[in-house]
Amino acid sequence: MATQTEIFLRTHPRSVEGDVELITRCVERLAACAQSCTACADACLGEVDAADLVDCIRRNMDCADVCVAAEQVLTRRTAANPELDRSLLETCVRFCGICAAECERHADSHEHCRLCADTCRLCEDACRQLLASIPKAPAARRPDV
Amino acid sequence: MATQTEIFLRTHPRSVEGDVELITRCVERLAACAQSCTACADACLGEVDAADLVDCIRRNMDCADVCVAAEQVLTRRTAANPELDRSLLETCVRFCGICAAECERHADSHEHCRLCADTCRLCEDACRQLLASIPKAPAARRPDV
Amino acid sequence: MATQTEIFLRTHPRSVEGDVELITRCVERLAACAQSCTACADACLGEVDAADLVDCIRRNMDCADVCVAAEQVLTRRTAANPELDRSLLETCVRFCGICAAECERHADSHEHCRLCADTCRLCEDACRQLLASIPKAPAARRPDV
Amino acid sequence: MATQTEIFLRTHPRSVEGDVELITRCVERLAACAQSCTACADACLGEVDAADLVDCIRRNMDCADVCVAAEQVLTRRTAANPELDRSLLETCVRFCGICAAECERHADSHEHCRLCADTCRLCEDACRQLLASIPKAPAARRPDV
Repeated sequence: MATQTEIFLRTHPRSVEGDVELITRCVERLAACAQSCTACADACLGEVDAADLVDCIRRNMDCADVCVAAEQVLTRRTAANPELDRSLLETCVRFCGICAAECERHADSHEHCRLCADTCRLCEDACRQLLASIPKAPAARRPDV
Repeated sequence: MATQTEIFLRTHPRSVEGDVELITRCVERLAACAQSCTACADACLGEVDAADLVDCIRRNMDCADVCVAAEQVLTRRTAANPELDRSLLETCVRFCGICAAECERHADSHEHCRLCADTCRLCEDACRQLLASIPKAPAARRPDV
Repeated sequence: MATQTEIFLRTHPRSVEGDVELITRCVERLAACAQSCTACADACLGEVDAADLVDCIRRNMDCADVCVAAEQVLTRRTAANPELDRSLLETCVRFCGICAAECERHADSHEHCRLCADTCRLCEDACRQLLASIPKAPAARRPDV
Repeated sequence: MATQTEIFLRTHPRSVEGDVELITRCVERLAACAQSCTACADACLGEVDAADLVDCIRRNMDCADVCVAAEQVLTRRTAANPELDRSLLETCVRFCGICAAECERHADSHEHCRLCADTCRLCEDACRQLLASIPKAPAARRPDV
Protein backbone atom coordinates (compact mmCIF):
# COMPACT_ATOMS: atom_id res chain seq x y z
CA MET A 1 0.00 0.00 0.00
CA ALA A 2 1.34 3.41 -0.90
CA THR A 3 2.37 5.57 2.04
CA GLN A 4 1.54 9.26 2.44
CA THR A 5 5.05 10.20 1.22
CA GLU A 6 4.66 8.13 -1.95
CA ILE A 7 1.14 9.43 -2.69
CA PHE A 8 2.38 13.02 -2.53
CA LEU A 9 5.24 12.17 -4.90
CA ARG A 10 2.91 10.35 -7.32
CA THR A 11 0.33 13.19 -7.37
CA HIS A 12 2.93 15.95 -7.80
CA PRO A 13 1.97 18.42 -10.58
CA ARG A 14 5.42 18.22 -12.18
CA SER A 15 7.08 14.99 -13.25
CA VAL A 16 9.28 13.95 -10.37
CA GLU A 17 12.93 13.47 -11.34
CA GLY A 18 14.57 10.42 -9.82
CA ASP A 19 13.47 7.09 -8.41
CA VAL A 20 10.18 7.58 -6.52
CA GLU A 21 10.66 4.42 -4.43
CA LEU A 22 14.15 5.41 -3.30
CA ILE A 23 13.06 9.00 -2.56
CA THR A 24 10.05 7.73 -0.59
CA ARG A 25 12.12 5.37 1.51
CA CYS A 26 14.80 7.98 2.12
CA VAL A 27 12.32 10.69 3.21
CA GLU A 28 10.52 8.25 5.51
CA ARG A 29 13.74 7.05 7.12
CA LEU A 30 14.99 10.62 7.57
CA ALA A 31 11.74 11.39 9.41
CA ALA A 32 12.08 8.27 11.56
CA CYS A 33 15.75 9.02 12.25
CA ALA A 34 15.05 12.64 13.24
CA GLN A 35 12.38 11.54 15.70
CA SER A 36 14.48 8.67 17.02
CA CYS A 37 17.46 10.95 17.65
CA THR A 38 15.29 13.52 19.43
CA ALA A 39 13.81 10.74 21.59
CA CYS A 40 17.21 9.16 22.32
CA ALA A 41 18.78 12.51 23.30
CA ASP A 42 15.87 13.07 25.68
CA ALA A 43 16.03 9.55 27.12
CA CYS A 44 19.82 9.86 27.60
CA LEU A 45 19.21 13.12 29.45
CA GLY A 46 16.76 11.30 31.73
CA GLU A 47 19.19 8.48 32.62
CA VAL A 48 20.95 8.41 36.01
CA ASP A 49 24.26 8.16 34.10
CA ALA A 50 23.41 11.12 31.82
CA ALA A 51 26.89 12.55 32.45
CA ASP A 52 28.38 9.52 30.63
CA LEU A 53 26.10 10.08 27.65
CA VAL A 54 27.12 13.63 26.77
CA ASP A 55 28.68 12.64 23.43
CA CYS A 56 25.63 10.57 22.57
CA ILE A 57 23.26 13.45 23.34
CA ARG A 58 25.33 15.82 21.19
CA ARG A 59 25.46 13.39 18.23
CA ASN A 60 21.71 12.78 18.56
CA MET A 61 20.79 16.48 18.60
CA ASP A 62 22.95 17.23 15.56
CA CYS A 63 21.72 14.20 13.63
CA ALA A 64 18.10 15.20 14.36
CA ASP A 65 18.65 18.75 13.08
CA VAL A 66 20.35 17.61 9.88
CA CYS A 67 17.73 14.90 9.19
CA VAL A 68 14.85 17.36 9.71
CA ALA A 69 16.42 19.72 7.16
CA ALA A 70 17.10 16.89 4.71
CA GLU A 71 13.58 15.50 5.08
CA GLN A 72 12.16 18.89 4.16
CA VAL A 73 14.52 19.50 1.24
CA LEU A 74 14.01 16.03 -0.26
CA THR A 75 10.23 16.18 0.20
CA ARG A 76 10.22 19.18 -2.14
CA ARG A 77 10.34 18.16 -5.79
CA THR A 78 9.55 21.40 -7.64
CA ALA A 79 12.71 22.81 -9.29
CA ALA A 80 14.84 19.94 -8.02
CA ASN A 81 18.61 20.31 -7.99
CA PRO A 82 20.49 16.97 -8.02
CA GLU A 83 23.79 18.57 -6.99
CA LEU A 84 22.22 19.96 -3.80
CA ASP A 85 20.43 16.69 -3.09
CA ARG A 86 23.74 14.82 -3.44
CA SER A 87 25.62 17.15 -1.12
CA LEU A 88 22.95 17.00 1.57
CA LEU A 89 22.69 13.21 1.33
CA GLU A 90 26.46 12.87 1.72
CA THR A 91 26.24 14.97 4.88
CA CYS A 92 23.36 12.84 6.18
CA VAL A 93 25.37 9.66 5.58
CA ARG A 94 28.12 11.06 7.81
CA PHE A 95 25.84 12.38 10.58
CA CYS A 96 23.77 9.19 10.70
CA GLY A 97 26.82 6.91 10.53
CA ILE A 98 28.70 8.68 13.32
CA CYS A 99 25.57 8.99 15.49
CA ALA A 100 24.86 5.27 15.00
CA ALA A 101 28.43 4.38 16.01
CA GLU A 102 28.07 6.41 19.22
CA CYS A 103 24.65 4.94 20.06
CA GLU A 104 25.99 1.43 19.43
CA ARG A 105 28.53 1.95 22.23
CA HIS A 106 25.60 2.22 24.69
CA ALA A 107 23.29 -0.31 23.05
CA ASP A 108 23.86 -3.00 25.68
CA SER A 109 22.99 -0.73 28.61
CA HIS A 110 20.27 1.45 27.05
CA GLU A 111 17.47 0.11 24.88
CA HIS A 112 16.78 3.59 23.40
CA CYS A 113 20.40 3.75 22.17
CA ARG A 114 20.04 0.32 20.55
CA LEU A 115 16.83 1.38 18.82
CA CYS A 116 18.29 4.71 17.75
CA ALA A 117 21.44 3.07 16.33
CA ASP A 118 19.22 0.84 14.18
CA THR A 119 17.14 3.78 12.93
CA CYS A 120 20.29 5.75 12.08
CA ARG A 121 21.76 2.78 10.17
CA LEU A 122 18.54 2.34 8.19
CA CYS A 123 18.57 6.04 7.36
CA GLU A 124 22.27 6.01 6.44
CA ASP A 125 21.58 3.08 4.13
CA ALA A 126 18.58 4.76 2.45
CA CYS A 127 20.63 7.94 1.93
CA ARG A 128 23.47 5.94 0.34
CA GLN A 129 21.04 4.17 -1.99
CA LEU A 130 19.35 7.39 -3.08
CA LEU A 131 22.77 9.01 -3.50
CA ALA A 132 23.91 6.17 -5.77
CA SER A 133 20.85 6.75 -7.99
CA ILE A 134 21.48 10.49 -8.57
CA PRO A 135 23.79 11.23 -11.50
CA LYS A 136 26.86 13.27 -10.59
CA ALA A 137 27.00 16.77 -11.99
CA PRO A 138 29.75 17.34 -14.58
CA ALA A 139 32.97 18.33 -12.81
CA ALA A 140 32.96 21.82 -14.32
CA ARG A 141 29.74 22.79 -12.52
CA ARG A 142 30.89 21.74 -9.05
CA PRO A 143 31.98 24.57 -6.79
CA ASP A 144 35.52 24.36 -5.54
CA VAL A 145 34.91 23.79 -1.84
CA MET B 1 2.08 -3.62 16.99
CA ALA B 2 3.87 -0.85 18.81
CA THR B 3 5.30 1.89 16.61
CA GLN B 4 8.75 3.42 17.01
CA THR B 5 7.24 6.43 18.82
CA GLU B 6 5.46 4.20 21.34
CA ILE B 7 8.52 1.99 21.93
CA PHE B 8 10.62 5.04 22.79
CA LEU B 9 7.93 6.25 25.21
CA ARG B 10 7.63 2.80 26.83
CA THR B 11 11.41 2.37 27.24
CA HIS B 12 11.96 5.88 28.63
CA PRO B 13 14.16 5.86 31.77
CA ARG B 14 11.73 8.07 33.69
CA SER B 15 8.06 7.31 34.15
CA VAL B 16 6.24 9.15 31.39
CA GLU B 17 3.56 11.52 32.65
CA GLY B 18 0.35 11.45 30.65
CA ASP B 19 -1.45 9.02 28.39
CA VAL B 20 1.14 7.15 26.26
CA GLU B 21 -1.38 6.23 23.57
CA LEU B 22 -2.58 9.81 23.14
CA ILE B 23 0.99 11.17 23.14
CA THR B 24 2.05 8.55 20.58
CA ARG B 25 -0.82 9.34 18.24
CA CYS B 26 -0.28 13.06 18.60
CA VAL B 27 3.47 12.91 17.89
CA GLU B 28 2.91 10.65 14.86
CA ARG B 29 0.21 12.89 13.43
CA LEU B 30 2.32 16.00 14.00
CA ALA B 31 5.12 14.31 12.01
CA ALA B 32 2.70 13.32 9.24
CA CYS B 33 1.17 16.81 9.20
CA ALA B 34 4.55 18.55 9.00
CA GLN B 35 5.60 16.40 6.07
CA SER B 36 2.22 16.74 4.36
CA CYS B 37 2.30 20.54 4.65
CA THR B 38 5.86 20.72 3.27
CA ALA B 39 4.82 18.48 0.36
CA CYS B 40 1.61 20.44 -0.31
CA ALA B 41 3.41 23.82 -0.28
CA ASP B 42 5.90 22.39 -2.79
CA ALA B 43 3.20 20.87 -5.00
CA CYS B 44 1.20 24.15 -4.93
CA LEU B 45 4.37 25.96 -6.01
CA GLY B 46 4.68 23.54 -8.94
CA GLU B 47 1.09 24.06 -10.17
CA VAL B 48 0.37 26.22 -13.23
CA ASP B 49 -2.04 28.21 -11.06
CA ALA B 50 0.55 28.69 -8.26
CA ALA B 51 -0.36 32.40 -8.12
CA ASP B 52 -3.87 31.43 -6.90
CA LEU B 53 -2.41 29.23 -4.17
CA VAL B 54 -0.32 31.85 -2.36
CA ASP B 55 -2.44 31.73 0.81
CA CYS B 56 -2.35 27.93 0.78
CA ILE B 57 1.46 27.89 0.44
CA ARG B 58 1.82 30.34 3.32
CA ARG B 59 -0.52 28.36 5.62
CA ASN B 60 1.30 25.14 4.71
CA MET B 61 4.77 26.54 5.44
CA ASP B 62 3.70 27.94 8.81
CA CYS B 63 1.82 24.78 9.80
CA ALA B 64 4.87 22.67 8.90
CA ASP B 65 7.19 24.82 11.05
CA VAL B 66 4.87 24.75 14.06
CA CYS B 67 4.24 20.99 13.76
CA VAL B 68 7.98 20.23 13.51
CA ALA B 69 8.60 22.20 16.71
CA ALA B 70 5.66 20.54 18.48
CA GLU B 71 6.72 17.07 17.37
CA GLN B 72 10.16 17.67 18.91
CA VAL B 73 8.85 19.19 22.15
CA LEU B 74 6.25 16.46 22.70
CA THR B 75 8.71 13.67 21.84
CA ARG B 76 10.79 14.81 24.80
CA ARG B 77 9.47 13.45 28.11
CA THR B 78 12.29 14.23 30.57
CA ALA B 79 11.31 17.13 32.86
CA ALA B 80 7.91 17.48 31.22
CA ASN B 81 5.92 20.68 31.71
CA PRO B 82 2.16 20.25 31.18
CA GLU B 83 1.55 24.00 30.96
CA LEU B 84 3.98 24.32 28.03
CA ASP B 85 2.55 21.22 26.35
CA ARG B 86 -0.95 22.68 26.64
CA SER B 87 0.03 26.03 25.19
CA LEU B 88 1.85 24.49 22.23
CA LEU B 89 -1.01 22.07 21.54
CA GLU B 90 -3.52 24.96 21.53
CA THR B 91 -1.35 26.72 18.96
CA CYS B 92 -1.13 23.54 16.84
CA VAL B 93 -4.92 23.18 16.91
CA ARG B 94 -5.22 26.68 15.42
CA PHE B 95 -2.47 26.29 12.79
CA CYS B 96 -3.73 22.86 11.68
CA GLY B 97 -7.37 23.93 11.66
CA ILE B 98 -6.79 27.09 9.62
CA CYS B 99 -4.39 25.31 7.23
CA ALA B 100 -6.95 22.52 6.74
CA ALA B 101 -9.68 25.07 5.98
CA GLU B 102 -7.49 26.71 3.31
CA CYS B 103 -6.50 23.37 1.75
CA GLU B 104 -10.15 22.29 1.69
CA ARG B 105 -10.92 25.25 -0.58
CA HIS B 106 -8.66 23.69 -3.24
CA ALA B 107 -9.44 20.03 -2.54
CA ASP B 108 -11.60 19.59 -5.65
CA SER B 109 -8.94 20.88 -8.03
CA HIS B 110 -5.78 19.60 -6.33
CA GLU B 111 -5.39 16.11 -4.90
CA HIS B 112 -2.42 17.20 -2.73
CA CYS B 113 -4.62 19.85 -1.07
CA ARG B 114 -7.29 17.23 -0.37
CA LEU B 115 -4.74 14.88 1.18
CA CYS B 116 -3.12 17.69 3.17
CA ALA B 117 -6.46 18.90 4.52
CA ASP B 118 -7.15 15.37 5.79
CA THR B 119 -3.73 15.09 7.45
CA CYS B 120 -4.18 18.51 9.11
CA ARG B 121 -7.63 17.53 10.43
CA LEU B 122 -6.27 14.27 11.86
CA CYS B 123 -3.46 16.20 13.54
CA GLU B 124 -5.83 18.87 14.85
CA ASP B 125 -7.99 16.11 16.30
CA ALA B 126 -5.07 14.30 17.96
CA CYS B 127 -3.86 17.60 19.46
CA ARG B 128 -7.34 18.33 20.85
CA GLN B 129 -7.54 14.86 22.39
CA LEU B 130 -4.12 15.10 24.01
CA LEU B 131 -4.97 18.60 25.20
CA ALA B 132 -8.16 17.35 26.85
CA SER B 133 -6.12 14.76 28.77
CA ILE B 134 -3.63 17.23 30.29
CA PRO B 135 -4.79 18.78 33.57
CA LYS B 136 -4.94 22.58 33.53
CA ALA B 137 -2.43 24.35 35.73
CA PRO B 138 -3.97 26.21 38.68
CA ALA B 139 -4.90 29.75 37.58
CA ALA B 140 -2.33 31.35 39.86
CA ARG B 141 0.58 29.75 37.99
CA ARG B 142 -0.50 30.87 34.52
CA PRO B 143 1.36 33.91 33.18
CA ASP B 144 -0.80 36.90 32.36
CA VAL B 145 -0.38 36.99 28.58
CA MET C 1 20.32 52.27 11.06
CA ALA C 2 17.81 49.80 9.71
CA THR C 3 18.65 46.16 10.34
CA GLN C 4 18.35 43.36 7.79
CA THR C 5 15.01 42.31 9.31
CA GLU C 6 13.59 45.81 9.00
CA ILE C 7 14.84 46.30 5.43
CA PHE C 8 13.11 43.09 4.33
CA LEU C 9 9.88 44.24 5.97
CA ARG C 10 10.12 47.70 4.39
CA THR C 11 10.83 46.35 0.89
CA HIS C 12 8.08 43.71 1.01
CA PRO C 13 5.95 43.72 -2.16
CA ARG C 14 2.69 43.75 -0.18
CA SER C 15 1.84 46.33 2.45
CA VAL C 16 2.86 44.79 5.76
CA GLU C 17 0.05 44.62 8.31
CA GLY C 18 1.03 45.58 11.83
CA ASP C 19 3.73 47.67 13.47
CA VAL C 20 7.01 47.19 11.54
CA GLU C 21 9.17 48.27 14.50
CA LEU C 22 7.52 45.82 16.89
CA ILE C 23 7.66 43.00 14.35
CA THR C 24 11.34 43.72 13.65
CA ARG C 25 12.28 43.69 17.30
CA CYS C 26 10.27 40.55 17.97
CA VAL C 27 11.79 38.61 15.05
CA GLU C 28 15.31 39.68 16.03
CA ARG C 29 14.82 38.73 19.67
CA LEU C 30 13.30 35.37 18.69
CA ALA C 31 16.42 34.70 16.61
CA ALA C 32 18.71 35.75 19.47
CA CYS C 33 16.69 33.67 21.96
CA ALA C 34 16.75 30.56 19.77
CA GLN C 35 20.52 30.78 19.40
CA SER C 36 21.03 31.58 23.09
CA CYS C 37 18.94 28.59 24.17
CA THR C 38 20.82 26.25 21.82
CA ALA C 39 24.13 27.58 23.17
CA CYS C 40 23.01 27.34 26.81
CA ALA C 41 21.75 23.76 26.41
CA ASP C 42 25.10 22.83 24.90
CA ALA C 43 27.10 24.65 27.59
CA CYS C 44 24.99 22.99 30.35
CA LEU C 45 25.73 19.63 28.74
CA GLY C 46 29.45 20.43 28.89
CA GLU C 47 29.43 21.35 32.62
CA VAL C 48 30.79 18.94 35.21
CA ASP C 49 27.43 19.24 37.02
CA ALA C 50 25.44 18.53 33.83
CA ALA C 51 23.31 16.06 35.77
CA ASP C 52 21.96 18.95 37.89
CA LEU C 53 21.06 20.93 34.78
CA VAL C 54 18.73 18.42 33.13
CA ASP C 55 15.64 20.62 33.55
CA CYS C 56 17.54 23.61 32.21
CA ILE C 57 18.70 21.68 29.12
CA ARG C 58 15.15 20.48 28.44
CA ARG C 59 13.66 24.00 28.77
CA ASN C 60 16.40 25.40 26.54
CA MET C 61 15.90 22.83 23.77
CA ASP C 62 12.14 23.36 23.74
CA CYS C 63 12.43 27.14 23.85
CA ALA C 64 14.90 27.05 20.93
CA ASP C 65 12.56 24.91 18.81
CA VAL C 66 9.54 27.12 19.47
CA CYS C 67 11.49 30.35 18.85
CA VAL C 68 12.92 29.04 15.55
CA ALA C 69 9.39 28.23 14.36
CA ALA C 70 8.05 31.60 15.53
CA GLU C 71 10.92 33.50 13.91
CA GLN C 72 10.11 31.86 10.60
CA VAL C 73 6.35 32.36 10.84
CA LEU C 74 6.63 36.02 11.89
CA THR C 75 9.27 36.77 9.23
CA ARG C 76 6.69 35.82 6.61
CA ARG C 77 4.26 38.68 5.87
CA THR C 78 2.46 37.49 2.73
CA ALA C 79 -1.11 36.41 3.56
CA ALA C 80 -0.67 37.24 7.24
CA ASN C 81 -3.10 35.82 9.78
CA PRO C 82 -3.29 37.82 13.03
CA GLU C 83 -5.08 35.02 14.89
CA LEU C 84 -2.23 32.59 14.20
CA ASP C 85 0.39 35.22 15.06
CA ARG C 86 -1.37 35.86 18.37
CA SER C 87 -1.55 32.20 19.29
CA LEU C 88 2.10 31.55 18.48
CA LEU C 89 3.22 34.66 20.38
CA GLU C 90 1.25 33.56 23.46
CA THR C 91 3.05 30.23 23.31
CA CYS C 92 6.44 31.97 22.94
CA VAL C 93 5.69 34.13 25.99
CA ARG C 94 5.17 30.96 28.02
CA PHE C 95 8.19 29.04 26.70
CA CYS C 96 10.53 32.04 27.08
CA GLY C 97 9.19 32.95 30.51
CA ILE C 98 9.50 29.44 31.93
CA CYS C 99 12.92 28.89 30.32
CA ALA C 100 14.13 32.22 31.76
CA ALA C 101 12.91 31.26 35.23
CA GLU C 102 14.83 27.97 35.05
CA CYS C 103 18.02 29.64 33.74
CA GLU C 104 17.77 32.27 36.49
CA ARG C 105 18.04 29.48 39.08
CA HIS C 106 21.57 28.75 37.77
CA ALA C 107 22.60 32.33 36.91
CA ASP C 108 24.94 32.68 39.89
CA SER C 109 26.92 29.55 39.09
CA HIS C 110 26.84 29.59 35.27
CA GLU C 111 27.42 32.69 33.16
CA HIS C 112 25.72 31.10 30.11
CA CYS C 113 22.55 30.60 32.17
CA ARG C 114 22.62 34.25 33.25
CA LEU C 115 23.04 35.41 29.65
CA CYS C 116 20.36 33.04 28.40
CA ALA C 117 17.88 34.15 31.07
CA ASP C 118 18.38 37.75 29.90
CA THR C 119 17.88 36.86 26.24
CA CYS C 120 14.73 34.90 27.08
CA ARG C 121 13.31 37.81 29.10
CA LEU C 122 14.02 40.26 26.26
CA CYS C 123 12.29 37.90 23.84
CA GLU C 124 9.35 37.35 26.18
CA ASP C 125 8.98 41.12 26.46
CA ALA C 126 9.13 41.70 22.68
CA CYS C 127 6.52 38.95 22.14
CA ARG C 128 4.20 40.54 24.74
CA GLN C 129 4.55 43.94 23.10
CA LEU C 130 3.85 42.63 19.60
CA LEU C 131 0.95 40.62 21.01
CA ALA C 132 -0.55 43.76 22.57
CA SER C 133 -0.44 45.48 19.17
CA ILE C 134 -2.37 42.79 17.27
CA PRO C 135 -6.15 43.21 17.38
CA LYS C 136 -8.01 40.23 18.81
CA ALA C 137 -10.18 38.32 16.36
CA PRO C 138 -13.93 38.60 17.03
CA ALA C 139 -14.96 35.87 19.47
CA ALA C 140 -17.10 34.07 16.88
CA ARG C 141 -14.07 33.27 14.70
CA ARG C 142 -11.95 31.73 17.44
CA PRO C 143 -11.90 27.94 17.50
CA ASP C 144 -13.13 26.33 20.68
CA VAL C 145 -9.89 24.81 21.93
CA MET D 1 32.38 44.65 21.14
CA ALA D 2 31.79 40.96 21.55
CA THR D 3 28.48 39.71 20.18
CA GLN D 4 26.14 37.29 21.94
CA THR D 5 27.50 34.42 19.82
CA GLU D 6 31.10 35.19 20.79
CA ILE D 7 30.29 35.62 24.50
CA PHE D 8 28.68 32.18 24.59
CA LEU D 9 31.72 30.68 22.90
CA ARG D 10 34.11 32.46 25.28
CA THR D 11 32.19 31.41 28.41
CA HIS D 12 31.81 27.78 27.32
CA PRO D 13 32.72 25.34 30.13
CA ARG D 14 34.95 23.27 27.85
CA SER D 15 37.82 24.68 25.81
CA VAL D 16 36.37 25.40 22.39
CA GLU D 17 38.25 23.69 19.56
CA GLY D 18 38.84 25.85 16.52
CA ASP D 19 39.04 29.55 15.74
CA VAL D 20 36.45 31.40 17.88
CA GLU D 21 36.36 34.41 15.54
CA LEU D 22 35.71 32.29 12.46
CA ILE D 23 33.09 30.20 14.26
CA THR D 24 31.37 33.34 15.55
CA ARG D 25 31.21 34.94 12.12
CA CYS D 26 30.02 31.73 10.50
CA VAL D 27 27.24 31.14 13.03
CA GLU D 28 26.07 34.76 12.75
CA ARG D 29 26.03 34.68 8.97
CA LEU D 30 24.21 31.35 8.94
CA ALA D 31 21.55 32.94 11.15
CA ALA D 32 21.35 36.02 8.91
CA CYS D 33 21.20 33.85 5.79
CA ALA D 34 18.46 31.61 7.17
CA GLN D 35 16.32 34.62 8.02
CA SER D 36 17.08 36.35 4.73
CA CYS D 37 16.11 33.26 2.72
CA THR D 38 12.86 32.86 4.66
CA ALA D 39 12.07 36.55 4.07
CA CYS D 40 12.99 36.39 0.37
CA ALA D 41 10.88 33.27 -0.25
CA ASP D 42 7.95 35.04 1.39
CA ALA D 43 8.50 38.28 -0.54
CA CYS D 44 8.79 36.34 -3.84
CA LEU D 45 5.50 34.62 -2.99
CA GLY D 46 3.91 38.05 -2.50
CA GLU D 47 5.08 39.43 -5.88
CA VAL D 48 2.67 39.76 -8.80
CA ASP D 49 5.14 37.71 -10.86
CA ALA D 50 5.41 34.99 -8.20
CA ALA D 51 4.98 32.35 -10.92
CA ASP D 52 8.32 33.44 -12.43
CA LEU D 53 10.05 33.11 -9.07
CA VAL D 54 9.29 29.45 -8.36
CA ASP D 55 12.93 28.36 -8.61
CA CYS D 56 13.99 31.24 -6.38
CA ILE D 57 11.39 30.32 -3.72
CA ARG D 58 12.52 26.68 -3.78
CA ARG D 59 16.22 27.58 -3.45
CA ASN D 60 15.40 30.01 -0.62
CA MET D 61 13.35 27.51 1.37
CA ASP D 62 16.04 24.83 1.07
CA CYS D 63 18.86 27.22 1.91
CA ALA D 64 16.94 28.44 4.99
CA ASP D 65 16.41 24.87 6.25
CA VAL D 66 20.06 23.89 5.79
CA CYS D 67 21.36 27.12 7.37
CA VAL D 68 19.07 26.73 10.41
CA ALA D 69 20.41 23.20 10.96
CA ALA D 70 24.02 24.33 10.47
CA GLU D 71 23.58 27.29 12.81
CA GLN D 72 22.39 24.93 15.52
CA VAL D 73 25.08 22.31 14.96
CA LEU D 74 27.92 24.85 14.86
CA THR D 75 26.61 26.73 17.91
CA ARG D 76 27.11 23.52 19.90
CA ARG D 77 30.74 23.07 21.00
CA THR D 78 30.51 20.22 23.54
CA ALA D 79 31.92 17.00 22.04
CA ALA D 80 32.74 18.69 18.75
CA ASN D 81 33.38 16.57 15.67
CA PRO D 82 35.46 18.32 12.98
CA GLU D 83 34.56 15.76 10.32
CA LEU D 84 30.84 16.47 10.76
CA ASP D 85 31.44 20.23 10.86
CA ARG D 86 33.37 20.00 7.60
CA SER D 87 30.72 17.98 5.83
CA LEU D 88 27.92 20.32 6.89
CA LEU D 89 29.92 23.41 5.94
CA GLU D 90 30.61 21.96 2.47
CA THR D 91 26.88 21.45 2.04
CA CYS D 92 26.17 25.01 3.21
CA VAL D 93 28.68 26.39 0.70
CA ARG D 94 26.74 24.66 -2.09
CA PHE D 95 23.24 25.64 -0.89
CA CYS D 96 24.25 29.27 -0.27
CA GLY D 97 26.18 29.56 -3.53
CA ILE D 98 23.40 28.14 -5.69
CA CYS D 99 20.71 30.15 -3.86
CA ALA D 100 22.78 33.33 -4.32
CA ALA D 101 23.17 32.64 -8.05
CA GLU D 102 19.39 32.24 -8.41
CA CYS D 103 18.63 35.39 -6.38
CA GLU D 104 21.18 37.36 -8.43
CA ARG D 105 19.13 36.62 -11.56
CA HIS D 106 16.27 38.66 -10.04
CA ALA D 107 18.36 41.27 -8.25
CA ASP D 108 17.58 44.04 -10.75
CA SER D 109 13.83 43.63 -10.47
CA HIS D 110 13.46 42.69 -6.80
CA GLU D 111 15.31 44.42 -3.97
CA HIS D 112 14.71 41.45 -1.62
CA CYS D 113 16.48 39.14 -4.09
CA ARG D 114 19.43 41.53 -4.26
CA LEU D 115 19.66 41.66 -0.46
CA CYS D 116 19.27 37.92 -0.14
CA ALA D 117 21.96 37.21 -2.73
CA ASP D 118 24.36 39.39 -0.71
CA THR D 119 23.52 37.61 2.55
CA CYS D 120 23.98 34.20 0.91
CA ARG D 121 27.37 35.23 -0.53
CA LEU D 122 28.54 36.49 2.88
CA CYS D 123 27.43 33.21 4.46
CA GLU D 124 29.04 31.14 1.71
CA ASP D 125 32.28 33.06 2.29
CA ALA D 126 32.19 32.60 6.08
CA CYS D 127 31.53 28.87 5.64
CA ARG D 128 34.49 28.54 3.24
CA GLN D 129 36.76 30.36 5.67
CA LEU D 130 35.73 28.24 8.64
CA LEU D 131 36.07 25.13 6.47
CA ALA D 132 39.62 26.09 5.52
CA SER D 133 40.51 26.36 9.22
CA ILE D 134 39.32 22.86 10.18
CA PRO D 135 41.94 20.14 9.74
CA LYS D 136 40.88 17.30 7.47
CA ALA D 137 40.37 13.96 9.12
CA PRO D 138 42.92 11.30 8.14
CA ALA D 139 41.70 9.49 5.02
CA ALA D 140 41.27 6.20 6.87
CA ARG D 141 38.53 7.57 9.12
CA ARG D 142 36.40 9.02 6.35
CA PRO D 143 33.37 6.93 5.38
CA ASP D 144 33.25 5.82 1.77
CA VAL D 145 30.25 7.83 0.56
